[in-house]
Amino acid sequence: MQNYQAPLDEMRFVIEHWLDARQDWERMPAFAEVDYSLAAQVLAEAARFAEERLAPLNAPGDRQGCRYEAGRVFAPDGFADAYKAYVEAGWPSLACAVESGGQGLPQLLNVGLLEMLYAANHAWAMYPGIAHGAYECLQQFASDGLRAEYLPGLVDGTCLPTMCLTESQAGSDVGLLRCRAELAEDGSYRLDGNKLFISGGEHDLTEDILHLVLARLPDAPPGTAGISLFLVPKRVDGLANGVICDGIEHKMGIKGSATCSLRFERAKGWLLGEPHKGLAAMFVMMNGARLHVGLQGLGHAEFAWQQARAYAGERRQMRAVPRPKDAVGAADVIAAHPAMQRILMTLKVQSQGMRMLGFWAAHLLDTAEHGVESAQRVEALALASVLTPLIKACFTDQGFQLASQALQVFGGYGYCSEYPIEQTLRDSRIAMIYEGTNEIQANDLLLRKLLPVGAPGAALLASQVRSECRRAEGTALQGRAEDLAVLLGEWERALQTLRQEQAEQPQRPYEAAVDLLHATASMLQGYAWLRAARVSRERGLVDEREASAQFFFRYLFPEAGHRIRLAMGDWKPGAFPQ
Amino acid sequence: MQNYQAPLDEMRFVIEHWLDARQDWERMPAFAEVDYSLAAQVLAEAARFAEERLAPLNAPGDRQGCRYEAGRVFAPDGFADAYKAYVEAGWPSLACAVESGGQGLPQLLNVGLLEMLYAANHAWAMYPGIAHGAYECLQQFASDGLRAEYLPGLVDGTCLPTMCLTESQAGSDVGLLRCRAELAEDGSYRLDGNKLFISGGEHDLTEDILHLVLARLPDAPPGTAGISLFLVPKRVDGLANGVICDGIEHKMGIKGSATCSLRFERAKGWLLGEPHKGLAAMFVMMNGARLHVGLQGLGHAEFAWQQARAYAGERRQMRAVPRPKDAVGAADVIAAHPAMQRILMTLKVQSQGMRMLGFWAAHLLDTAEHGVESAQRVEALALASVLTPLIKACFTDQGFQLASQALQVFGGYGYCSEYPIEQTLRDSRIAMIYEGTNEIQANDLLLRKLLPVGAPGAALLASQVRSECRRAEGTALQGRAEDLAVLLGEWERALQTLRQEQAEQPQRPYEAAVDLLHATASMLQGYAWLRAARVSRERGLVDEREASAQFFFRYLFPEAGHRIRLAMGDWKPGAFPQ
Repeated sequence: MQNYQAPLDEMRFVIEHWLDARQDWERMPAFAEVDYSLAAQVLAEAARFAEERLAPLNAPGDRQGCRYEAGRVFAPDGFADAYKAYVEAGWPSLACAVESGGQGLPQLLNVGLLEMLYAANHAWAMYPGIAHGAYECLQQFASDGLRAEYLPGLVDGTCLPTMCLTESQAGSDVGLLRCRAELAEDGSYRLDGNKLFISGGEHDLTEDILHLVLARLPDAPPGTAGISLFLVPKRVDGLANGVICDGIEHKMGIKGSATCSLRFERAKGWLLGEPHKGLAAMFVMMNGARLHVGLQGLGHAEFAWQQARAYAGERRQMRAVPRPKDAVGAADVIAAHPAMQRILMTLKVQSQGMRMLGFWAAHLLDTAEHGVESAQRVEALALASVLTPLIKACFTDQGFQLASQALQVFGGYGYCSEYPIEQTLRDSRIAMIYEGTNEIQANDLLLRKLLPVGAPGAALLASQVRSECRRAEGTALQGRAEDLAVLLGEWERALQTLRQEQAEQPQRPYEAAVDLLHATASMLQGYAWLRAARVSRERGLVDEREASAQFFFRYLFPEAGHRIRLAMGDWKPGAFPQ
Repeated sequence: MQNYQAPLDEMRFVIEHWLDARQDWERMPAFAEVDYSLAAQVLAEAARFAEERLAPLNAPGDRQGCRYEAGRVFAPDGFADAYKAYVEAGWPSLACAVESGGQGLPQLLNVGLLEMLYAANHAWAMYPGIAHGAYECLQQFASDGLRAEYLPGLVDGTCLPTMCLTESQAGSDVGLLRCRAELAEDGSYRLDGNKLFISGGEHDLTEDILHLVLARLPDAPPGTAGISLFLVPKRVDGLANGVICDGIEHKMGIKGSATCSLRFERAKGWLLGEPHKGLAAMFVMMNGARLHVGLQGLGHAEFAWQQARAYAGERRQMRAVPRPKDAVGAADVIAAHPAMQRILMTLKVQSQGMRMLGFWAAHLLDTAEHGVESAQRVEALALASVLTPLIKACFTDQGFQLASQALQVFGGYGYCSEYPIEQTLRDSRIAMIYEGTNEIQANDLLLRKLLPVGAPGAALLASQVRSECRRAEGTALQGRAEDLAVLLGEWERALQTLRQEQAEQPQRPYEAAVDLLHATASMLQGYAWLRAARVSRERGLVDEREASAQFFFRYLFPEAGHRIRLAMGDWKPGAFPQ
């Protein structure tokens, strides 16, 4: 069986060549000391941790699951120890600011770390997965006193956070939540209510847990305009706070991640940010979380690709047409069969393409925070905010679809727990749902990021794509680049049409959103592959990126046009289905 | 939670209107006594069994799984009792010939029964699922003596069969199998070897089990030309035969179905059919099995649709754009949101469309066996043999994809075992693999059924589709029919091109097979919906079939053209992926 091997070479290609990140780091004082050698060293250490400490716990953690016992939750054997090692190695502080006790390294390296954690052990990585988002949220919204008390634990990892949004009646629609908070005499608050599906709501990895809780103040207006954000620690002054874990969910996958029902009973908490403005504060955390969920899809895709490749290179069944040149024996490796080649190439090209876009988003976030020129920061933030819902939705769709394709390569063995791919398929499915379903991401992308007249996202993306197309002139990919440029025009016209139709038919963008999400993702993967092939060529790298780009344009890029035509068709849904 | 409700109205629509089966039954002496009233009665009884006896065992069976204990296997609690009730009600003999003690009813009713069994409890239905195929195999290939001894048990269900093909090194490639059979002095054989992934290889549902085993005689040529088929009972003359169950697999789904490793040690068996011609005999069984596996996909899709529809009609989250006319409160049912409508309509239209094609195939098999005119029988068999791989592959792909879409409707709840949809997703995944992977079905469809110059399949399909297109003239669907006719032309040209290219590039059809499979399926669903809408209109039925057909052509039919273009593109895979 193939063990997880962190794709360090691919990560380095993206960072050093595709992004050429050093160029930007050199101009950002915050990253003056970061160079490729340091980056490579950090990623190699992260790889060692993911491969050696986390990957071996993945299947056992799935089999054992979490244990609930009278309000306490125990993660699978080995999870707490691995987390201890993670903290001791300093990983939680990687991308935290130096002035907060962090290492001040770029988000770009943090997404490299996260991809590896998720690929090696999605369930385990759920525990520290949102820690950086919580850190950012506290940085921005907590009072000095709260920051002094709680930030160090988040930075050094001795304390883990949760995001407490969902209630049984309030899932996608957070505006329906009922959890209440009342001001106490000492200026703190008392929270009451029930929260559902809280990842890491209770566990044995850390002593304390910091719950970030959405709740309503007594004078709150209804809906999302009446939601405030509170910091509610599991323990206050060394004593248990009023946060009770009533049970954990039995799930299809990520069984090693404790998904908890929490009950808040006169739980002591503190307001983060302003009253009734909790959603805005939570979104600081959520945006990071959405990018990170996208990385889960990338991790699953990469792991699936490694598994399928290894198995397809060993397993012999039937003679391929045509047989490989060195063919011997009664049967060829299944990697030689055309249907398997198609799957394998799809796995390879999609996972590599996703990495380019995902790392790009992280690098844009670094630029948005640390770029020297204001215009550069604004533009980077705009691009990152367009990419975020797209990455969340399309990467997780792909993580699941590619895990299924990889499973197919294994045949019947793939369906058995003896091989890890069926777990990958099960684990990957949740990422299409949490942190906002993929349908909600599609609405966010189209209705908030692409369609509004003042929003710069669409034009910025188009300009990136168009300029990359021009740079393919005279190369072997010129024809593909011309196809991409034509598609880009179709995409721009589709957006323009929707803007016009929207006034009279407000439902039109909602009907078109999912298709346009996939069309946009496919277009951007085309951009990513053109750029990868060009960079490889310009730098004389000896690799297969031009062939991969050709495969992408031959087999995967047609999805973009197909989806635009689906989005812009004429059928109107009528009554609800009966 | 929504319990499974057999879609009897939809089945009756297909049988009585879409197929108008009575017209054909009346001309077949074998079915002289079959009419719609009898058919409806049989299906209603089957529905009661599936809903009341099987569906309640589905989730508990998944949780409990099978138990292996020192060579013995125990199905989940209740499975054996339900099987006893199934036998007592006479279901095993439904479509067996009257002269063999069966009820002599059409396959068409049997597929109705099977759809319900698979939808209600896939794992349970695995035990009797291949019984009819084994019955047909014995009918055709067993000696009189063997028939007299073993057929009655298969007909009345007191004995269950297995198909023993797979060995660890021989999965898709049955030609690699090593199991040996030697002639004994009494004319029987002694079998030695190991078989893997044997569904129902050992269980506590029946006293005896009839293993149909592929093995090699001492003088067998290598490969598939040296495989013979043997009947190997679990018990001979009241004593245990040399068939040992070494264990069961731990699987992602269908956990209530015992997937066994079997060891044959000097096991007594009898030859079925001629020496070295075992594969042909096994294919009699396998063809039926492939249709039945397709019905699993249909069952999963129907169940998923029922689940999603019920949940989406109750769960309220956010206001839809536009809000439903009767909207009240802070949030609308999620069925009113465009992205959910799209999923729900897709579930509905795909599952109903699959049923039309699946039942058509069964009716063709009835016609092929009992049709009065020889030309009619030949044509029906040719059509059924084109439809079989298509139904197996596309229905099971859809069963899995639609289960995933339905799960998405449930959000986080869908990922929890509290709701049944995550089990449906897990159960459905195996059907894309067993009885020949879907990639192998695609090769079968294209290389054996559509491309060969003498094979009548492509022309017969085309003529069906073309004539239905003509009948839409002057109706609301005329434009859609014209699109379908254009697509049909593209499809025929694609086949013609592949026939020409095949000589010089033998790998071309293998590269195009999966895409053409999906293109063909989408084209035939277009045919099915045109026909459904026409029949509804002609008969004055009050239903939504025209709207469903419009949805199909608007959102699902474009897949056909997309897939043809993918199949006929110009990219050539190069070296194996690295």
